[in-house]
Amino acid sequence: MIQKRFFLNGAEHNVFVDSEEKLVTVLREQLGLTGAKVGCGEGQCGACSVIMNGKVVRSCITKMKRVPEGAQLMTIEGIGTPANLAVIQKAWIKHGGAQCGYCSPGFIVSAHALLLENQNPTRTEVRDWFQKHKNVCRCTGYIPLVDAVMDAAKVLRGEMKEAELDFILPADGRIWGSKYPRPTAVAKVTGTLDYGADLGLKFPDDMLHIALVQAKVSHAKIKGIDFAEAEKMPGVLKVITHKDVVGKNRITGLITFPANKGDGWDRPILCDEKVFQYGDAIAMVCATTRHEALAAAEKVRVDLEVLPAYMNLVEAKAPDAIEIHPGTPNHYFTQLLEKGEDTKKYFAGGDYVTVEDFTISSRQPHLPIEPDVAFGYYSDDGKLHIHSKSIGVHLHHAMIVEGIGVPADQFVLAANPMGGTFGYKFSPTIEALVGVATMLTKQPCLLVFDYHQQQQYTGKRSPFYTTIRFAADKDGKLAAMETDFDVDHGPYSEFGDLLTLRGIQFMGAGYDIPNIRGEGRTICTNHAWGSAFRGYGGPQSCLATETALDQLAEKLGMDPLEFRYKNVYRPGCTNISGQVPDSYSLPKMFDALRPKYKAALEQARKHSTDAYKKGVGLAVGVYGCGLDGPDTSEAYVEMNEDGSITVGTAWEDHGQGADAGAIGTAHETLLPMKVAPERLRFTWPDTEKTPNSGPAGGSRSQVMTGGAIRVACEALLAATKKADGTYMDYAELKAAGKPTRYNGTYSVPGVPNNEKGVGKPFMVYMYGIYMAEVTVETESGKVKVDKITNMLDVGKINNRLVVDGQNWGGMTQGIGFALFEDFEDIEKHKTMAGAGIPYINQVPDDMEIHYFEEAREFGPHGAAGTGEVPLCGTHPAILNAIYNACGARVKRIPATPERVLEAMKK
Amino acid sequence: MIQKRFFLNGAEHNVFVDSEEKLVTVLREQLGLTGAKVGCGEGQCGACSVIMNGKVVRSCITKMKRVPEGAQLMTIEGIGTPANLAVIQKAWIKHGGAQCGYCSPGFIVSAHALLLENQNPTRTEVRDWFQKHKNVCRCTGYIPLVDAVMDAAKVLRGEMKEAELDFILPADGRIWGSKYPRPTAVAKVTGTLDYGADLGLKFPDDMLHIALVQAKVSHAKIKGIDFAEAEKMPGVLKVITHKDVVGKNRITGLITFPANKGDGWDRPILCDEKVFQYGDAIAMVCATTRHEALAAAEKVRVDLEVLPAYMNLVEAKAPDAIEIHPGTPNHYFTQLLEKGEDTKKYFAGGDYVTVEDFTISSRQPHLPIEPDVAFGYYSDDGKLHIHSKSIGVHLHHAMIVEGIGVPADQFVLAANPMGGTFGYKFSPTIEALVGVATMLTKQPCLLVFDYHQQQQYTGKRSPFYTTIRFAADKDGKLAAMETDFDVDHGPYSEFGDLLTLRGIQFMGAGYDIPNIRGEGRTICTNHAWGSAFRGYGGPQSCLATETALDQLAEKLGMDPLEFRYKNVYRPGCTNISGQVPDSYSLPKMFDALRPKYKAALEQARKHSTDAYKKGVGLAVGVYGCGLDGPDTSEAYVEMNEDGSITVGTAWEDHGQGADAGAIGTAHETLLPMKVAPERLRFTWPDTEKTPNSGPAGGSRSQVMTGGAIRVACEALLAATKKADGTYMDYAELKAAGKPTRYNGTYSVPGVPNNEKGVGKPFMVYMYGIYMAEVTVETESGKVKVDKITNMLDVGKINNRLVVDGQNWGGMTQGIGFALFEDFEDIEKHKTMAGAGIPYINQVPDDMEIHYFEEAREFGPHGAAGTGEVPLCGTHPAILNAIYNACGARVKRIPATPERVLEAMKK
Repeated sequence: MIQKRFFLNGAEHNVFVDSEEKLVTVLREQLGLTGAKVGCGEGQCGACSVIMNGKVVRSCITKMKRVPEGAQLMTIEGIGTPANLAVIQKAWIKHGGAQCGYCSPGFIVSAHALLLENQNPTRTEVRDWFQKHKNVCRCTGYIPLVDAVMDAAKVLRGEMKEAELDFILPADGRIWGSKYPRPTAVAKVTGTLDYGADLGLKFPDDMLHIALVQAKVSHAKIKGIDFAEAEKMPGVLKVITHKDVVGKNRITGLITFPANKGDGWDRPILCDEKVFQYGDAIAMVCATTRHEALAAAEKVRVDLEVLPAYMNLVEAKAPDAIEIHPGTPNHYFTQLLEKGEDTKKYFAGGDYVTVEDFTISSRQPHLPIEPDVAFGYYSDDGKLHIHSKSIGVHLHHAMIVEGIGVPADQFVLAANPMGGTFGYKFSPTIEALVGVATMLTKQPCLLVFDYHQQQQYTGKRSPFYTTIRFAADKDGKLAAMETDFDVDHGPYSEFGDLLTLRGIQFMGAGYDIPNIRGEGRTICTNHAWGSAFRGYGGPQSCLATETALDQLAEKLGMDPLEFRYKNVYRPGCTNISGQVPDSYSLPKMFDALRPKYKAALEQARKHSTDAYKKGVGLAVGVYGCGLDGPDTSEAYVEMNEDGSITVGTAWEDHGQGADAGAIGTAHETLLPMKVAPERLRFTWPDTEKTPNSGPAGGSRSQVMTGGAIRVACEALLAATKKADGTYMDYAELKAAGKPTRYNGTYSVPGVPNNEKGVGKPFMVYMYGIYMAEVTVETESGKVKVDKITNMLDVGKINNRLVVDGQNWGGMTQGIGFALFEDFEDIEKHKTMAGAGIPYINQVPDDMEIHYFEEAREFGPHGAAGTGEVPLCGTHPAILNAIYNACGARVKRIPATPERVLEAMKK
Repeated sequence: MIQKRFFLNGAEHNVFVDSEEKLVTVLREQLGLTGAKVGCGEGQCGACSVIMNGKVVRSCITKMKRVPEGAQLMTIEGIGTPANLAVIQKAWIKHGGAQCGYCSPGFIVSAHALLLENQNPTRTEVRDWFQKHKNVCRCTGYIPLVDAVMDAAKVLRGEMKEAELDFILPADGRIWGSKYPRPTAVAKVTGTLDYGADLGLKFPDDMLHIALVQAKVSHAKIKGIDFAEAEKMPGVLKVITHKDVVGKNRITGLITFPANKGDGWDRPILCDEKVFQYGDAIAMVCATTRHEALAAAEKVRVDLEVLPAYMNLVEAKAPDAIEIHPGTPNHYFTQLLEKGEDTKKYFAGGDYVTVEDFTISSRQPHLPIEPDVAFGYYSDDGKLHIHSKSIGVHLHHAMIVEGIGVPADQFVLAANPMGGTFGYKFSPTIEALVGVATMLTKQPCLLVFDYHQQQQYTGKRSPFYTTIRFAADKDGKLAAMETDFDVDHGPYSEFGDLLTLRGIQFMGAGYDIPNIRGEGRTICTNHAWGSAFRGYGGPQSCLATETALDQLAEKLGMDPLEFRYKNVYRPGCTNISGQVPDSYSLPKMFDALRPKYKAALEQARKHSTDAYKKGVGLAVGVYGCGLDGPDTSEAYVEMNEDGSITVGTAWEDHGQGADAGAIGTAHETLLPMKVAPERLRFTWPDTEKTPNSGPAGGSRSQVMTGGAIRVACEALLAATKKADGTYMDYAELKAAGKPTRYNGTYSVPGVPNNEKGVGKPFMVYMYGIYMAEVTVETESGKVKVDKITNMLDVGKINNRLVVDGQNWGGMTQGIGFALFEDFEDIEKHKTMAGAGIPYINQVPDDMEIHYFEEAREFGPHGAAGTGEVPLCGTHPAILNAIYNACGARVKRIPATPERVLEAMKK
């Protein structure tokens, strides 16, 4: 212990600290300043940035002994407060810089330090600053952040009025379609929004800390667990193993397709008989402090019989491979697709030009800045509450309730304010662990993953090994497609059949292909289990589709744009599932893109050198909005005594903008009531307090929950409308003896794909065209994305800040998917940087989006979703651009320099 | 546990709380907002005030279940920050509203709420607001607080510029004599100054919480302590009894006068053989959380043989009383005084007019707003550190080191930022307890007293039972005084002999009395032990002196002013100890007071009615500055690389203004260097880091430590002076190869009083005259002080804000001493309100101070101290005014309505 004196946001502090402790821990856990967030915990992400003696430092790697005596420290709390926002914070809000908001305090602190040094930075200087200080954002694609700094600098220089940073309500009173700041923005930019780990710190002092004992091998039989020594460690309340679990000790995806050879009960909460993958939880230690829990967890001894680990689907499919789940074959599900005629004849030679390609997609990690976190407690009425980053509280309630063994009506699941999940939180994991611990200790329990745990023990995007074939006639009109693919879904089957169906639904999507035969297979392996991830099956499908189509165009001697233009959806065609498309915007988007494309090709030719070759690539991205087949969502609106109106949903916000989505949709519907937008209140999802809006995944929420909000608001309008055309207020409503709350349920008439792949899986789709311009350094194989141009039809736009941000961010993840990101090597890829998260200078400052707002029949006020589509088309456009630049056709992503070099040699 | 959603300083929070938990605990312990302070803990003091839905609430009595869902909360942290002070905070600073600062956040929050409702309050409305919201200040006498609100309101109304609230450095560059804000003011008004309990909350999570097992009887033999059950309670690390203490298990006052019959080792750290007073510590429980520690402490069983408890000195002196400390008589010390001729003849009848009076002073409680608190830890170099409210870190180090049994060089004692102590922290108690616990657990340990513990287990002012006789010639010239008094010092002898000497030194002080005989006796009892308290012996002595002199004046038929005027110190006389006075300001102060006195008498006559009688009373107050006899202090000044200069002392700041005192003295001495005052840095006292400046008591620090600072600064000036008359900066000093640090030691040639009471105990004295104007409600006996007028000579004034505040605050404590405060009834007086702390409407808004700045030879730049003197003259002036009003001569204080009524009947 040492005493350290410093000045924090202008106030002197004398704190007593372990000299080896990290500054961020002292700020957060000792001083209660939770504005600085812990992301990677190892200096790679900048979420913990603070200013020390004028310099930006990452407080997660700054040991207290290195904090100079008398240091001047500034944290986000010292920059501005909700009641007194700093210019940089207002600019951040104006530009939608805070999506999930987890990186925002670190970025704003960093930007503040930049502006102290340089009030007239160029965009490049801003970007270089964030690069140098390792500020990483996973949501925004960085563009709005740079925009915000540039505006703040203008205000500081006196070239812009501070008031210009504020949102001005348009004359028509509508926020629909505007850049209305999301309701959580102020809290996010001031560091006052409490995320799970922050809430955990703010619990009463009987909170227990959980440390996991995790597998360090990928496949093994468990012969014994010895925790006698651990139990005696200081502060330990309980060591928990599978034997203590009251319920079935399994997590289930609920619905298993009939053809699935497993029963869906294969994922243990705490491993009992076997370890199925690296990181699997074997035991939990509950102790008074985190340090004590971790120290005790080190003392748990697990006796294992190590089994052969199948780290990819080739190994798991091998004839001599043992069954990972004894009794269920490693290849446990097959989905077929049959559309139109048998396709054999098109590939038999003859009149058709054909192409066949084989691609492997990566085990892309979600790389949220906020690692997974959850806590549990018992409420005064005796119910078990679990709070987490769940993006499907009602879904997850059902997925874990039997496993932990609590009566369903005695169990409440709620979503905390949370950092991005990008889909990994479609899978509950930590929820079940925390539930078990809380039930057994009867005390509040907290589990916060470190970043290695985040990487090694949450789901990942499942790799597709895809063979795809296309046949076109001589004029370039597509006649047939054949697909044949395996999905490496890791050891747990949850949604693995559904994901395989996604491959069937989206290979070839966007194109009029009359005849298709396809087969997808789900394979059990011992690598990271497959969980949802933005685009879910779409990115893998588009990779196969779009790189093959490029090759076919070349074979046909056609321009890749014109070839695609010829084949995209037009009235009269059906999509892959045999369903009539809901929008025919692709041709007009190509028309709009064409001149830009030509100019880009011209520029690339002009500026290419032997050392730096430039290229242009295209791809179409299409994805559905919904859960597949029929889908339903519920919401309510309620007039409150204080004049506010609650828009009640369980629309989980993982950065995608549930708050803005709900408020924008309600406001548009309630326009006749003339409600000021700030009078609308959103809700935090909670199975006890909010209706079942379904999970916030698959770009379904704006369509489905937005739809439910619309229905509820319409009910409110109907109930409150007075004879003179105005609307009752709360008092009048009460006086009239009417209810103050109105529910809305919205369902769409989807039809699940049948065993032949035919159906109407989604009633609303999103369509985009992506043009990538890249430079390949021929000596190294390094690829730089110079620009992305996106033509996009996501229906009518609710909130422009949200939709811009979703697409910039999604395209950035597409860049990562194409070039950098992976979770193949459990050791190397366990860190954020090691796994290839794109830093700002790996992402172009120039990502143009042109919207084509085609109203959707089934979306409220014509809106579709938007989140998934940018991750469908971006990466194949980049891969096609690489080929265009240097002739390297990379078939396995990420297209690392080594792979590009290797492909160039071919 | 419940989940509660509210908005805190504009930011939404969802917290998980025990529904029975208090809001202040959630704010401080869960949310880390330690601006709201816990004082009384039961809604009597307002230190914890926050605004909830626009209303001021005391968060210590607001249970979480009573916080409305969605409530808007505002704490001091939301009002303004160090970098962005609110107007009310600036006004607070301007007027010196924050002395110890512990009440400041609560007051400022309360004032903020007032100004939200009423931007044009009258002073009465401000006072009524603070009265209604129970905001209590123990330091300032409330006047500067009302001044601050009035100024803030002016600024809010646009009648004053905000900039007028800032301190402007005078043209001559001097802050000496100015209203320079104290350096800690910004931290105090923003709630960012961490006091002991705040620092304790900000420790790493291995901090243990101590709960005490305390005696519930006042005198007993301990037969056994059974803690088997307690040890098994959750979270308990260790239960500690006297058997575990490594050292002598005693606290000692170090110096015991030769005639003392005790050895000074009578105060146990943890009781072993006996309980000596109610509240004595018998055992300690160290547990992970406070709740756990308290729960386990309830389970400790103490087997006692109850003994007769002597709750006053009459009982303890009774011939059949047993020895409280076996082997030492209950009357264990006697101090004599012999000055001039034997006094018998003056009282034998004849030419002299004589008076005899008997008074009893109360067991006045210090009533700080901050209860006692301390923590201990081991530093990386293996030393035991204890931090507390010690106002004498070097002294206390020596007082407890043997008791706890740590090598002296392995033990560091430091003072935290602290609320007022008014002297009770001249006695270490909690320090030793925390030291023992830290040594035995090897973990950081925290002990925070609740207010009942503060009342029942810290020292109190020792009651004097005084018989005093004066003889004057027919012309009213004093000829002789005889004093005979007993001091009820409680069970512990620490400084009891010294306190008795103070009676000898200050009975009759201020008057030329040629012949004196006196005897004072120290008596051991079982009531609260005697500790230092502002004025230490002076208030008791002045009570006896000044009420008797009033009676003598009446007997002589002289006006009380003229009688005093005739007898006060003039050149040629000596003081009680036979020492030549250091200032003869009393006659000129009486001259200045005379017209005011006459006017006051006139007003009183005019406005008296049968129901409300008004009166005017006078008293002289005199007290010495120093430790008695020779005194020494040490300081250093050090030039720092950043251009600042550290003024290094262990001048403990318990609200009296050590920071301003040190900086002001250094700045005045360093004037030739032209140092901007903000470049001067003070230090927090720490036996390892700061020199031995001696304790901050007895109004000695400005004289002694100020002197040491002056000497050190003069050394710096000498070392840095260049040929051209300018001074070297840090770089030049280093380049010249000279040291950057210069020490200063200052000693004064005091001579301790000998066994006959003769000596030169103090080289500097303070002199004041106090005129009280009161109204007595004749039916109830209730007394209201309408005004106090004070003529004051405390030498040259360093900081006017500090000295004003000390005197207003001291006079307020004098009002409390006279009328309200007591700690006689252990049960009734265990709360702040129960013990009679004066609320704002019990204190006049009109307390006039007129300074007579006579330079003192032994004070730096002519300064004396100031803290003790207002508590010497205020209360006898009030008692004399009561007599003047209604003829009631109250002889035992506090002069409660019952006692006034009783005295009126006589």
